[in-house]
Amino acid sequence: MSMKIALEEAEAAAARGEVPIGAVLVHGPSGRVLARAGNRVEELGDATAHAEMLVLRAAADPAQHRLAECDLYVTLEPCPMCAAAIALARVRRLYFGAYDPKGGGVEHGPRIFTQPTCHHRPEVVGGIEEGPAALLLRDFFAVRRQS
Amino acid sequence: MSMKIALEEAEAAAARGEVPIGAVLVHGPSGRVLARAGNRVEELGDATAHAEMLVLRAAADPAQHRLAECDLYVTLEPCPMCAAAIALARVRRLYFGAYDPKGGGVEHGPRIFTQPTCHHRPEVVGGIEEGPAALLLRDFFAVRRQS
Repeated sequence: MSMKIALEEAEAAAARGEVPIGAVLVHGPSGRVLARAGNRVEELGDATAHAEMLVLRAAADPAQHRLAECDLYVTLEPCPMCAAAIALARVRRLYFGAYDPKGGGVEHGPRIFTQPTCHHRPEVVGGIEEGPAALLLRDFFAVRRQS
Repeated sequence: MSMKIALEEAEAAAARGEVPIGAVLVHGPSGRVLARAGNRVEELGDATAHAEMLVLRAAADPAQHRLAECDLYVTLEPCPMCAAAIALARVRRLYFGAYDPKGGGVEHGPRIFTQPTCHHRPEVVGGIEEGPAALLLRDFFAVRRQS
């Protein structure tokens, strides 16, 4: 269900001309959605405005800067920046859609959570709704290659 | 000179009860300061509010989301999140103060810029004003251990 929301955010990102990646942050015990966002790199002109960063920031709370009971759903394997941010925020579980051999930082590249200096390792489940998540990205880039 | 500004931001962060790390983003060719910030993790309750992320975001410009002519000065070796953000933003040069064997992501840990999947490698100069940068951090943690 939460991944469906992330996919909606990815579709909305595509409609804005952004690479279609969406994320949602959920309070695990209650199931409450704390934040949802799609990629806004182009709109903001901010290379760090990935969907994951936006939901982590939107859920920021001066009373506690750890999101220990929270689960993050994102349509694509997080890049190294986002994976490291997820570790810093002490996210409980990470669910992601498509695997990203070229840019991912969880199962690929620096495999951030396996680094000895990584102080928090969320549970990770990859491949959730992988088909629709990957299809959105393929369609987006296919259209751009034609234009 | 730019590192002095980063050190001022680190001192200001310490005065706010934040881990004393400061950063400044400079347009290289003109020397113009585009953004300066200290760590605001505690104030914002946002584990991603590192000084580097704050200056990258403050300099975001919808007209171009790459900071190709910009140099980033930071008092401590960036963590993996910030190093990956610096690569995404295409920062030209990174100057940092103290080395961080426990949490750094440039010369330690995942060594983000050496990863085959890292698509931009800034020039890196470490150890600039290393003494004052490290002293700020040592003093800060010494006081906290006593209290």
